[in-house]
Order: sequence, then C-alpha cells, then structure tokens
Amino acid sequence: MSSTFGTVFRTTTFGESHGLAVGAVIDGCPPGLALSEADIQPQLTRRRPGQSALTTPRDEQDRVRILSGVEAGMTLGTPIALEVMNEAQRPGDYRELQSVPRPSHADYTYRMKYGVAARSGGGRASARETIGRVAAGAVAEKMLRDRRGTEIVAFVSAVADVELEGEPPADLSRDRVDATPVRCPDAGTAERMRERIEAAKADGDSVGGIVTCVCRGIQAGWGEPIFDKLTAMLGRAMLSIPATKGIEIGSGFAGTRMRGSEHNDPFVARGGCGLGTATNRSGGIQGGISNGEPIVFRVAFKPTATIGRAQHTVDYEGNEVELAARGRHDPCILPRAVPVVEAMAALVLADLALRQAARG
Amino acid sequence: MSSTFGTVFRTTTFGESHGLAVGAVIDGCPPGLALSEADIQPQLTRRRPGQSALTTPRDEQDRVRILSGVEAGMTLGTPIALEVMNEAQRPGDYRELQSVPRPSHADYTYRMKYGVAARSGGGRASARETIGRVAAGAVAEKMLRDRRGTEIVAFVSAVADVELEGEPPADLSRDRVDATPVRCPDAGTAERMRERIEAAKADGDSVGGIVTCVCRGIQAGWGEPIFDKLTAMLGRAMLSIPATKGIEIGSGFAGTRMRGSEHNDPFVARGGCGLGTATNRSGGIQGGISNGEPIVFRVAFKPTATIGRAQHTVDYEGNEVELAARGRHDPCILPRAVPVVEAMAALVLADLALRQAARG
Amino acid sequence: MSSTFGTVFRTTTFGESHGLAVGAVIDGCPPGLALSEADIQPQLTRRRPGQSALTTPRDEQDRVRILSGVEAGMTLGTPIALEVMNEAQRPGDYRELQSVPRPSHADYTYRMKYGVAARSGGGRASARETIGRVAAGAVAEKMLRDRRGTEIVAFVSAVADVELEGEPPADLSRDRVDATPVRCPDAGTAERMRERIEAAKADGDSVGGIVTCVCRGIQAGWGEPIFDKLTAMLGRAMLSIPATKGIEIGSGFAGTRMRGSEHNDPFVARGGCGLGTATNRSGGIQGGISNGEPIVFRVAFKPTATIGRAQHTVDYEGNEVELAARGRHDPCILPRAVPVVEAMAALVLADLALRQAARG
Amino acid sequence: MSSTFGTVFRTTTFGESHGLAVGAVIDGCPPGLALSEADIQPQLTRRRPGQSALTTPRDEQDRVRILSGVEAGMTLGTPIALEVMNEAQRPGDYRELQSVPRPSHADYTYRMKYGVAARSGGGRASARETIGRVAAGAVAEKMLRDRRGTEIVAFVSAVADVELEGEPPADLSRDRVDATPVRCPDAGTAERMRERIEAAKADGDSVGGIVTCVCRGIQAGWGEPIFDKLTAMLGRAMLSIPATKGIEIGSGFAGTRMRGSEHNDPFVARGGCGLGTATNRSGGIQGGISNGEPIVFRVAFKPTATIGRAQHTVDYEGNEVELAARGRHDPCILPRAVPVVEAMAALVLADLALRQAARG
Repeated sequence: MSSTFGTVFRTTTFGESHGLAVGAVIDGCPPGLALSEADIQPQLTRRRPGQSALTTPRDEQDRVRILSGVEAGMTLGTPIALEVMNEAQRPGDYRELQSVPRPSHADYTYRMKYGVAARSGGGRASARETIGRVAAGAVAEKMLRDRRGTEIVAFVSAVADVELEGEPPADLSRDRVDATPVRCPDAGTAERMRERIEAAKADGDSVGGIVTCVCRGIQAGWGEPIFDKLTAMLGRAMLSIPATKGIEIGSGFAGTRMRGSEHNDPFVARGGCGLGTATNRSGGIQGGISNGEPIVFRVAFKPTATIGRAQHTVDYEGNEVELAARGRHDPCILPRAVPVVEAMAALVLADLALRQAARG
Repeated sequence: MSSTFGTVFRTTTFGESHGLAVGAVIDGCPPGLALSEADIQPQLTRRRPGQSALTTPRDEQDRVRILSGVEAGMTLGTPIALEVMNEAQRPGDYRELQSVPRPSHADYTYRMKYGVAARSGGGRASARETIGRVAAGAVAEKMLRDRRGTEIVAFVSAVADVELEGEPPADLSRDRVDATPVRCPDAGTAERMRERIEAAKADGDSVGGIVTCVCRGIQAGWGEPIFDKLTAMLGRAMLSIPATKGIEIGSGFAGTRMRGSEHNDPFVARGGCGLGTATNRSGGIQGGISNGEPIVFRVAFKPTATIGRAQHTVDYEGNEVELAARGRHDPCILPRAVPVVEAMAALVLADLALRQAARG
Repeated sequence: MSSTFGTVFRTTTFGESHGLAVGAVIDGCPPGLALSEADIQPQLTRRRPGQSALTTPRDEQDRVRILSGVEAGMTLGTPIALEVMNEAQRPGDYRELQSVPRPSHADYTYRMKYGVAARSGGGRASARETIGRVAAGAVAEKMLRDRRGTEIVAFVSAVADVELEGEPPADLSRDRVDATPVRCPDAGTAERMRERIEAAKADGDSVGGIVTCVCRGIQAGWGEPIFDKLTAMLGRAMLSIPATKGIEIGSGFAGTRMRGSEHNDPFVARGGCGLGTATNRSGGIQGGISNGEPIVFRVAFKPTATIGRAQHTVDYEGNEVELAARGRHDPCILPRAVPVVEAMAALVLADLALRQAARG
Repeated sequence: MSSTFGTVFRTTTFGESHGLAVGAVIDGCPPGLALSEADIQPQLTRRRPGQSALTTPRDEQDRVRILSGVEAGMTLGTPIALEVMNEAQRPGDYRELQSVPRPSHADYTYRMKYGVAARSGGGRASARETIGRVAAGAVAEKMLRDRRGTEIVAFVSAVADVELEGEPPADLSRDRVDATPVRCPDAGTAERMRERIEAAKADGDSVGGIVTCVCRGIQAGWGEPIFDKLTAMLGRAMLSIPATKGIEIGSGFAGTRMRGSEHNDPFVARGGCGLGTATNRSGGIQGGISNGEPIVFRVAFKPTATIGRAQHTVDYEGNEVELAARGRHDPCILPRAVPVVEAMAALVLADLALRQAARG
C-alpha cells in the first residue's frame, strides 16, 4: 500500500524505470469531469528530461494513454488507469554499479530492505517513478480547476546559494515560470542559477535547491484535524518526492525567530464571504485547515546523488573503491521537479477537498 | 479517520480539552510485550504544563489508565485503550473569545470547516489533544526499545534567535535534556533561551523555536518506497503537531547549498553487519529508507498564537476589535513539545518496523 | 487495524471481557448531530444478558459514558469515545479451561495466532466485545435516522428447526420484536422457539438460528462498486460477529434455484422520485448498490460453542479429556444478537451514506 | 478506494468492459517470488467465455501482460501492474438498452449513484471487470503455493435444483473440476447440471447455482480478530463478485439447525504440530481465525439477470415497456465464476497470511 496516496481521491503508482511501463491508477475521481490525454500530457512533457541543455540528455517520449475510467471525454467515476510505455531501456549503463552502492542513493537501503538488488536503473527509486504521480496529479488539477477554481504554480526559488528574494510575482503563472530553462520567474535570478548549474556540470558535480509552490483559489475548510491536517498531508506528499530533505509552510523556519505578536496574521474583512488575513505568515493554513488565503510552501532538494566525479566509498563487501558514474547525469533536478511538486500538491488538495465534501 | 495514524501499529486519539477525557486506542501492538502505566506516565508528566516557571501554570494531573489490551502486565495483541481524565474544566476563561477568532489560531478554520464553534478551550485543536499521542507514543517506544533496541531523544535546539551550534552531544539522553527547564542539553545555550522566554513573557508575548530529534538503534530497511517513505511519514507526523511550520531531515535546507560531491555520505565498512556512512548528511535515511545511521531531523514551531498583548483584528462579522487573551498563556511551547516530537517519531518508527516485518 | 470498521464513518472497538472497560471510538461522525447517552443506552440494554430466563444469567449494568466528541448535546465532528466499565470480573470461572481448548471456540486459534493465552473470559473473542459495536452502531443509527430517515429492525427468524414463514410483518418495529423474549415478531413461532431453547438448556446444550434484518428508508446509490459493494460490506460486517457462519441477501441461497425470468425484479414507476421494483428478490441491492427498496438479509448463527454437557476432546498436549463448562452458559445467543446485527448494519449504512456524499 | 482489496497484499482493479484495457495493480507482493505471465494466463483462460457450448459465445483473447514489478522472472517487491487489452469493442449491442434499466442489473443503481449512464456494456458492473481480480488472484495463489503450501480449488456444486450431494472428492483438483464443462467434479451430477443449463438456454432464460471452494494447506493463525476475521474477509470478498447473494462457511445455514453438542468439532492430536479436529463443521475457521483444517465455503449466485426472453418493466421515465436482450447471453455464469471465486479466496488468504507475518 506504500504506492497509494489519498483517502477519497486515491492514486496508486506503478512501474520501474526500465520495465515495460510506468503509470498510475486513480480511484475516487468524481464522475462527469471532462478529461482527455490532452489534460495530462503537458505536465508530463514539462517533467521530461532533455528539454534543455541544463537537464539530463536521456530522451523520452512519455506519451500518456488513458486505459479506463473515461468514456466519450468524460470521467465515469471508476478507476482511471494511466499508462506511459518505457521506450529507452538501456540497463547496460547501470550494470557496473551493482557491486558498489552509490553514496546517498537508494541502492544500499533497497538491498537491505528487499534482499534483492534491482537489476537496472534504480527500479522504483528512479526519478522515472514520478511519471505516474505527474499524470495522476494532472487529473487532480483538472478536477480542482474545473470544480473548485484552484490554481497551482510551483517554481525554482533557489539553486545552490542563489535565492530568489522577496515575494513571488503577483502574475505568477506556468508560462512565466517556463520562460526560463531553470523555471525561476525572475530572469536575472534565473540567469545566475543557470551559471551555478553549468559550473557544477563542468565539474562533473551537481547542485541542489528549493522549489516554492503557491496554490490559489482555495476554499476555507480543507484539511482534517489531527493526523490528516493540510500541513501533515503536504509534509508527507513533498517528502515522498525523491531527493527532498525538508519542507516549510508559510513563514517556516524563519518564522521560528519571530515573536507571536509579529507572526500572527490579523484577520480582515473580505467582501461577503468570510474573513481574510492582512498578512500570510500562516501560508494559508491555520490549525491544519485552509483559511482561504493562498497556500505557500517551500521544498528542499538535496544535490543529485549521482555525479560524474569519482567518489571514494566501499563496495557491498566493505572494500574501498573509487566510484565514477558511467551514464550522463543530471546536474540539477530542480526544473524537472517543478511539475512533480505541483502534482503532489494537487493530489493532496483534491483528496482533502473531496473529504470536506463528505461531511454530513 | 483523520484521528488515526499508522498502518500496522495504528493509533487513534480522542478527546477535547474540556470534555470528560482524552486518550488513545492503539490497534496492532504485538502481544507479549511487558507494559504498565509506569511505562507511559513519565512522558505524560514531561508533557504537562506547569512544571516550571517557564511554561503555562495550568495544573493538570494527567494520570493515565490502561483500559484494555494488557493482562497481568503483558500486552495481549488486542487494542490498547489509554485514558486520561480531564480534571480542570474552566471554560469561562475562553468564553469571551467566541465572537472573535484568535489570529493564527484554529478558531476561524474550524468554524469554516464544521459550521459549529467549539464551546471551550479550542476543542481538538488544543494542545491537550497531544496527550493521546504522547501516551500512545510511549507504548510504541516501549516496543521499539524492547524489541529493536531503538532510543529516541528530542531536545530544544533553538528558541527565537538563540540556536544550539554544532552536533548534538554524544551522550545525549533524556536526563541530560531535562537538566535544564528549556530542555536544551547545553547549559549555556539553555540559559540564553530562558532569557528570551522570560523577556517575551514579560511583554505578554511568545516565542517560537526548533526541536531536534535523534533516533538511534535503527535497523536498515525501515520505510516503504514511494508514499510511505520514512521521510514522508516523519513529515506527516511532525507537521500534524500543533504550531509546526516545517521539518528538515539530515542536512535539510542548509544541504540545498552544497554540491553533490560535498553532500554525499561515503559508505564505510562496519564490523560484520552491513555498511555505515562516514558522514550523516542523509540523516539516516536514503531513498526514503533507513540506512542504520541515526535518524536526525528538526521541527520548526512558530511562536504560540495565543498571547497576552492586545491584537488588532476583526470579529466574525468583520468588525474591527482589540483582542486580548484572558487566561494566562504559555510564552513558549517548545519544552513541552519535546515529548510530543518523541512520541510521533515513535509512532512512525514502530509502524514502519512492523511493516518491514510483514515481508515474505 | 483489525478492530476498525468503515472508511469515512470509522469505528474502532476495544476491550477484553474482564479488563477495566470495553468501548469504541468513532472517527468521522458529522458535526451538529444531537446525541447523548440516552440515544445509546437502549441498544446496550437490549444486548445485555440476564434479561430473561432464556439468556445467560450473568448480570451486567453496561452503562455507557460519552468521553469526547459531544458538547452541549451536539456532536462536534471530532472522535466520539464511548466507554462501558466492566463490573463483574470473575476470571475464576474460566481458569480451569486453560489447559484444554474448548471445541469450536476461539481458544485454540487465538493461542496459535498470538502465542499467548488470554487469561480469562476469552479476551476479545468474548461476546462482551460486541458492546463497543452496539454503542457505536447506536450513534450511526442516530445519524441515519435524523439525516437520512433510515430505520433498521432485526429479529430472530429461526431457532434450530423452528422458522418464521412468510414475509416479515408490515408493521415490523423494535417494540413488536421485543414483545417476546426470543425477539421473534410472531407470537406463535416465538413460543415454539422458546420451547427449543428451554429443551436445549435442560440438556446442558445449545441451539443456533437465524437473524433477519430489514433496513427501510434507504436512498438509491449507497454502496461503492467492486470491493466495497453494499453486499460486500454487509458480508464483512455480519461475518465479523462471533458465531456467524453465513449471510444471504434478498433471495439468497433459495434464489439460486430460480430462473432469471422468475428472479428478476421488474421496475415499476414510483410517484416522483425514481423507480421501484414490483418484487424485492434483490433485497434492495443491485450491482452492489442500494436501489431504494428495503434492504433485507439473513444471518446464520451456529449453536453456542460453550455448553454444559461434557465433551470428549484433547488438551493442548493432545491428551484425551472430558471437558465440561463450569460457569452457567447461554443456550441461545440469538435474542441478544439482534441489536448486534442492527448495529453492524448501521455501521455499514452510515459509512456508505457518507461515502456517497463525498462525490463531487 | 472501492476498487482496492487488502491491507498488506493490496489489489486495485481497473477497466470498463469496452474501454482500452482492464487489469490490476498489486501493491505488497513480497520480493523474490518467481513470476511470469505463464503463472497468470491459465486462470484468465479458464475465466474466458466461449470455452464451451454452455457459456457465452463472445470471443476474447484475454492475454495478460506484466507491466511492472517483475524483473528477470522474479518479483521486486514493487507494484505489479497487470494489463489485458480489450479487443472486442461492440458497444452497439448494448446501445438500445439505455433508456430502459435492465431488471435486477446494475443499470438503475449506477445511474442513481453517479448521475451518468455508462455508455456501453455495463461499465465496471460487467463481468469483464473480474479479469483484474483473476489476474491478481493468480499472483496471490503463486505466493501462497510457493511460500505457504496452500492450494485453492473451487467447483460448481449446484445448478438450479441439481446439487452435488456429500463431501467433495478427496482427490479434488482443478484438472478434475475441468473434466466437465460445468466444472462439477462428479460426472453424473455434471451431466444433469448441463441439462438444466441447456433447457434454460433453449427458453432464452438463465439459471443460478452455488460454487463451493476448498482451501487446503492453511496454517493456523490466519485472520485478524474483530472486523478482519477470516470469515469477514471471505464474506466481503465473495459478496463483491457480481451476481452473488450469499455465502456460508463450514456448516453454514444447515448448521443453525444443530445443537452445540452435535455441531462442535472435537479436537484430536496431530503428529507433532498442533491439534486437528475430528470433524470440520467450522469450515477451518474458529473465532474468525484459521485452525489449520481445510477452509470450506459456499457462494450463492443468482440466475443471470440478462436474459433473452422479453421482460415487462418500465423505462427511466416510468413508462411500461417490453424489454428483450439483443446480444447473445450467458445462461449460466457458474463455470466461469469458478476461477473468480478462487482468485478472491487467494486475495483474502495472501493478505491475511502476510498480516500474520507482521506480528512481532
């Protein structure tokens, strides 16, 4: 069950990086929603590597096919199976690594857990597993947009030590984010980020960074008290993405240095429907439940573990070795992580929105 | 189901701050484990307010009673119901707040969610809800200690801008943590933290901070791939604690500034059983699965929302008001949050340890 | 998690027959429902043994207490904890049985499963465990009655070879059912059932029988396709009750002898709201989903395993022994099973009604 | 989540009868199990219609493909996605039925539930949905056979009023069951069953019947107390199969007429490992937990709702109509139901066997 996410809007992903296919099955999507592959493909294409000189050159087509749950362009309320065939299967690139666990990768822990080594490509721990998430997330987004008016936009807010200062731009949109190859909506910052990535690449090294996500058009009342708080579900969702090491919501770690009188968000009247807050240090969530303000959170990605430079480590028998990656590697996962963060946010919000509808 | 945590070792908490009782039911604790109230009470007592001049003066006895699942001092493998009666019921203190939602508190969002206002004391959003977690966490800890050799110790590593520098002490223990009222294992830092808390208290204000948690005696292989990764489950668990705004594991946000070659933890031989790592920037978790090194993570707590100082805000109708808390308030939740963080870590680890045992 | 039932309206029961208390925690009951102990106690009292000469003489008070989730007579939407203290703790009666597993009882299988023998009273396998179900079921019934107009009435339709012929009476009600001590709504049949029970009792023996349950005021559309069909959930619920060996819905096993043309229920027009069926061989469920007609099903209970007569069997070591029960025994569980069947039906319907509300 | 079955060994099915594909994803199958399509295909082929003159002539290839979770002939412990493409898509046959709900079919209830009518072939309510179950069940069976020594064999024990008397043959096997087209292991009874089916077919009518299932090689201790008893899980599993109206375990409904002294199964010594029972009226399950004896249960199937004969009913607007099926219909689902019952039994046992392994 560890490959399933959600309680009412439930997604199960499947697929190894070098098996026949990857994909997802969504159980619990409401009926009557307009849906076709065209709603899903753009996010898969955004997730694809090889889209710019900055990211991994492995070429993948990643065409999604809806196998079930949709008839005549409308969802039936039945499970929606989404499939992306794997086209490039080159296990040879990875074969050499088998006697040496790659440092800070999943090789060692998977072997300890399962007692079998995945033959190739890291199996389920590969970034390719995120295809199922992105496909399912696009369906969740469609539902949220059509039925609740919710918009989700993520962007790269830091690469190594280069950080986007200040608030996200008011006209934040995916188009604006995609205007630069690093997916940072500020062109100047994006350029400095690009330099950091190129420099690491030239050294056979990698960089990490931060993805910020903003969700607008949220109704107050989403999130379930105690263990399924909106904060808790975002925490689980984001820290299930490969290479993540942290999440902060609203003021986050910086907010721990404030006093309560500075940090509290005073309420203000909004025309007609409920209250708003003058500031949003809460990041749109109070007591674990959405308050109607934009939900804002930041996700920390460590530098990619697979690097071109040689590493001094030991093999499974404990013998010291020098390890160098054979295949080409991705010096910065951040731009490709943007649609994955958006997808996981959509899976969280779709589930909690439907759970809220289950009252009474 | 939002009050249930875990898949195999499952905990359901119940209770409002001013109802008859709070508590928890654990379903899935293995049979044959030695268990009595004496295993649980110490953590409840550590959680209690009023233990020092630094924390809230509300006096609570918080005596736990095991209602079921234990016979002759041994668990039966059946549900363990744990009950703590509420003794101090003084809803009057909170009654005035009802027409005005407290800023950055759960009042507004709960009302938007449920359409009813909890009469008193914040209902389930009260810190008192954590009693059920702490009681259940103590049972999980007992199982982990007796059956797996696991030890969990949390401490306050930052209060406002005062931060404990460097690595946690090698002889970290609960006794050492409890040696100072702020529960910081470095006496000098603890003293400076105390000053920050006293200063805030004098101003009718509050401070936030960071709790760090270290889990030792972990076997490699705990954590389920994809959505139930150890990172993901810690994320959900910690961000379900009231007032939390972030979590980082291992190198966390600071690690995003490193290059892969600096950040990767090289493997080293360990005598006999598996490999270790020379450094622990992974925080004991790789690919979402424990690698046997200590699990280390940090949790951000915002400053307490309830403050004594007057706040400018609006009531539910949108009219501007000055709001001042009537009851005495807790200027710093951090010392009391320590056993809560430990409890949630125990609930995560107990569940994943048992899930790992379900293989094959 | 095996003590939890339901997906949205979730019940977890706890308690051994001779521990401190038995009870249940309900997570997912909607807020704003009028609820007090008075809504729950009548069903617990109906479940109590010792209410007539026909049933077990063990005297229990079984007073329920609501510990949480209700404030000022209204549900809060938070977990509702229900507790019934155990008053009669006489483990001595059962102590002798420990070296010999009682035939067709749970002694042997529990020992094989857990590796520990419950000291007294059969632990969780005792009929006393059903108190938690009946208490929670009464809450579910309250919600169904107030919010959906649903009524649930069960009755004893067979004891040994005495069977109630024909359709249940049109004016079926709990009062009518309770008019006879065996809880059969036909006085003549009830009298013959009573004779069977008395005869078995005189022989130190026991009898089985059938409980029929009728649920009226059902909306069309309850039940989730595939594995959570209304039939499937009733099957799970009823076959989780101790001593049950079968369930049939609508025409059941007798219907397997009909042809399709005889068995199909033709649709008929109903004034205004949807269609009805001219006959109800479907038992109110088609394709696993309610069609709005009354839900009718029958549950088979084997004769009570604990009997007064000596039984030839073997002890745990395989030595042949004569086993005789020491305590007084209940020759017929059927009348007391009536409120348990009603409770489980209520838990199924409340959950599926709320799940249906979670669409869209 | 209604398309998911199991807690540790979890199966999610997907697919409409006339969409692109049907299939299943299994999450929780242990790693290191030898598995290929050849382990799955035989049961799918047994499930196929058109295998004899007795069953529906619609020709389907039903070739299964493993998309993930298996590498080099061994399971990885990751989700196993199983896909069967739909080849015959002839929605025209069913189009006429759309304004008239077929009596005792799922048309009406699905429309009431979802507010949309499945365009063709009954959508998820079609028998074709069982392909995913049979494929997943074959994987569960493989695990049970290889790791636990469990064998599952089902057969047709009644068609209309023709019933197989006495105990199942001692040499019961799938080969023996498949020796007759009706899948009844007694040739004489099988012939009389065939006559009933042919007679119904000649009349454009249908017949129902009973499938009996025997599971051997069961360890004592499978089944979780209270709501996940082995009886309860079998109840849910079997009553989730289309057209089922009842299940009885061991002595079932007939056992309700016995006295306790007759019904109880005395224990007997077995060489070395635990006890057995002299009789098996318990059907291998006591207190909801397996006792090591064969598990035996019977499932009631109503006569197929779709018949060739005209039926007097009403359309969705309430107008009286004569309804006749256009496509050819299957007069008796029983032989094809045999592998479905086996599959569901395997899914129950695999899950409970793994849950038992999670103790300690």
